Amino acid sequence: MIERLAVMGVGLIGGSLARALRAADQVGEIVGCGRGRENLEQAVELGVIDRYHQDPVEAVRDADLVFLAVPLGAMRDLLAQIGPALRPDAVVTDGGSVKSSVVADARAVFGTVPPWLVPGHPIAGTERTGVSASFAELFHHRRVILTPVAETDPQALATVRSLWEAAGADVSEMSVAHHDEVLAATSHLPHMLAFGLVDALTRMDCSDEIFRYAAGGFRDFTRIASSSPVMWRDICIANRASLSAMLARFSTEMSDLAASIRDADGEHLLEVFARAKAARDDFIDGTR
Amino acid sequence: MIERLAVMGVGLIGGSLARALRAADQVGEIVGCGRGRENLEQAVELGVIDRYHQDPVEAVRDADLVFLAVPLGAMRDLLAQIGPALRPDAVVTDGGSVKSSVVADARAVFGTVPPWLVPGHPIAGTERTGVSASFAELFHHRRVILTPVAETDPQALATVRSLWEAAGADVSEMSVAHHDEVLAATSHLPHMLAFGLVDALTRMDCSDEIFRYAAGGFRDFTRIASSSPVMWRDICIANRASLSAMLARFSTEMSDLAASIRDADGEHLLEVFARAKAARDDFIDGTR
Repeated sequence: MIERLAVMGVGLIGGSLARALRAADQVGEIVGCGRGRENLEQAVELGVIDRYHQDPVEAVRDADLVFLAVPLGAMRDLLAQIGPALRPDAVVTDGGSVKSSVVADARAVFGTVPPWLVPGHPIAGTERTGVSASFAELFHHRRVILTPVAETDPQALATVRSLWEAAGADVSEMSVAHHDEVLAATSHLPHMLAFGLVDALTRMDCSDEIFRYAAGGFRDFTRIASSSPVMWRDICIANRASLSAMLARFSTEMSDLAASIRDADGEHLLEVFARAKAARDDFIDGTR
Repeated sequence: MIERLAVMGVGLIGGSLARALRAADQVGEIVGCGRGRENLEQAVELGVIDRYHQDPVEAVRDADLVFLAVPLGAMRDLLAQIGPALRPDAVVTDGGSVKSSVVADARAVFGTVPPWLVPGHPIAGTERTGVSASFAELFHHRRVILTPVAETDPQALATVRSLWEAAGADVSEMSVAHHDEVLAATSHLPHMLAFGLVDALTRMDCSDEIFRYAAGGFRDFTRIASSSPVMWRDICIANRASLSAMLARFSTEMSDLAASIRDADGEHLLEVFARAKAARDDFIDGTR
């Protein structure tokens, strides 16, 4: 049971965790913090938080659990601000999509990764943002990856694990580096392709007409291009090592495919498409 | 009113048009044709077609309307086979995703594009295949593009237009070349990216784990990678000129994005992502 939860950034992720813990009756008071007063007022009206402070120092006061749900670019300053204000036994975790940068931020601020900081990442979300998009079931049966480091207090890790389990998530652990590689492949690269595709089409002469004739496949394919530009700018910069490697790998794949198309090499195209279809069908069936 | 419709290839598209015209009471008899006897038997059982022939010559006999819904790679042979067997007043249209290749096939077979051939393309479909996936509403409010050429008989064009309108579609016309450019951008390129992404991930060392941590965004993004490999091999080869140009354009876009990521150029990344998000949001709102 959490006595006082401080949610730093009451958007889709922060708001949904607050709702989930409230619904599971796992939390006493919930204090929100954020830059947009309107969003915070709405969060109170919706019952997602009990009250709010715009000053992070005030928001974390006496909280036993602090959840950092701000863009990656805001993590370092936030850690520096709240560090000295935390209750001595407070546990802090975050929801950032890149873990190496959060760990590096902590090292930069504190000289080490504090034992009370448990880096984590709920693999859930929609392309919508703000507290109005949050809902208690967002994490149901979703994977949450925790990436403890050598310094992490096992008790703090256990606390964060049970918090996510109370929110309905399947929690697993992996190393910081491995997390960032896996996410570069499954999430960050696809987002770059969706943003890149839509942007490329936007810049074509007949772009209005092009969008007019786009169909359902395009709609689904580009859904993730409606995600928050600020959040994705931060993710790209935070994970630029792993993401650059994935972009290079993908570029090789596409050069290969483009050559087969140019040369009308039907045999190779069929091989690639069949292998991709089989993998994707297995993925959907849950057999992969 | 169509007296006898011959559906050459009773899959998702052919089966759905048959169902739609039947539902709209616009057709007398429907004769199916295809290579897979099991699929044709199922089509009869489902009431999608009244009877079938596996021989195209028999299937088009006395049909006043013939719909070619076979992979692009099979069009040329099919046109050569059915040409001499058609009723003198028969109208033929197709559902191929590339129009320049169908027109080239007709020229190769007949020396000219016959006036009775109306090249067309319903922009509809799912990643599923076969008559069992067909449904009468597939074309409701979907765009169908007809690409008549100089030789096309206006009466044949009008007949095909009303056929698609009876199936609930919004029909428009454009040139063969423009159609192939627009579709390369909105459909063929996205399919290449989805196939290429899944294939690239499949070939990574930790691919099983990668798929395990993929989430909803990945699911939507890669849906089109579950499409028919044979159909897409044919589309790639048939539209290789326009598709190669789009692949080159996209490659430039991604090199640019990769450079910004490597250089941590947040300003440029934000600009690209914001432009893409705005275009995609407008597209979904229908304002673009």
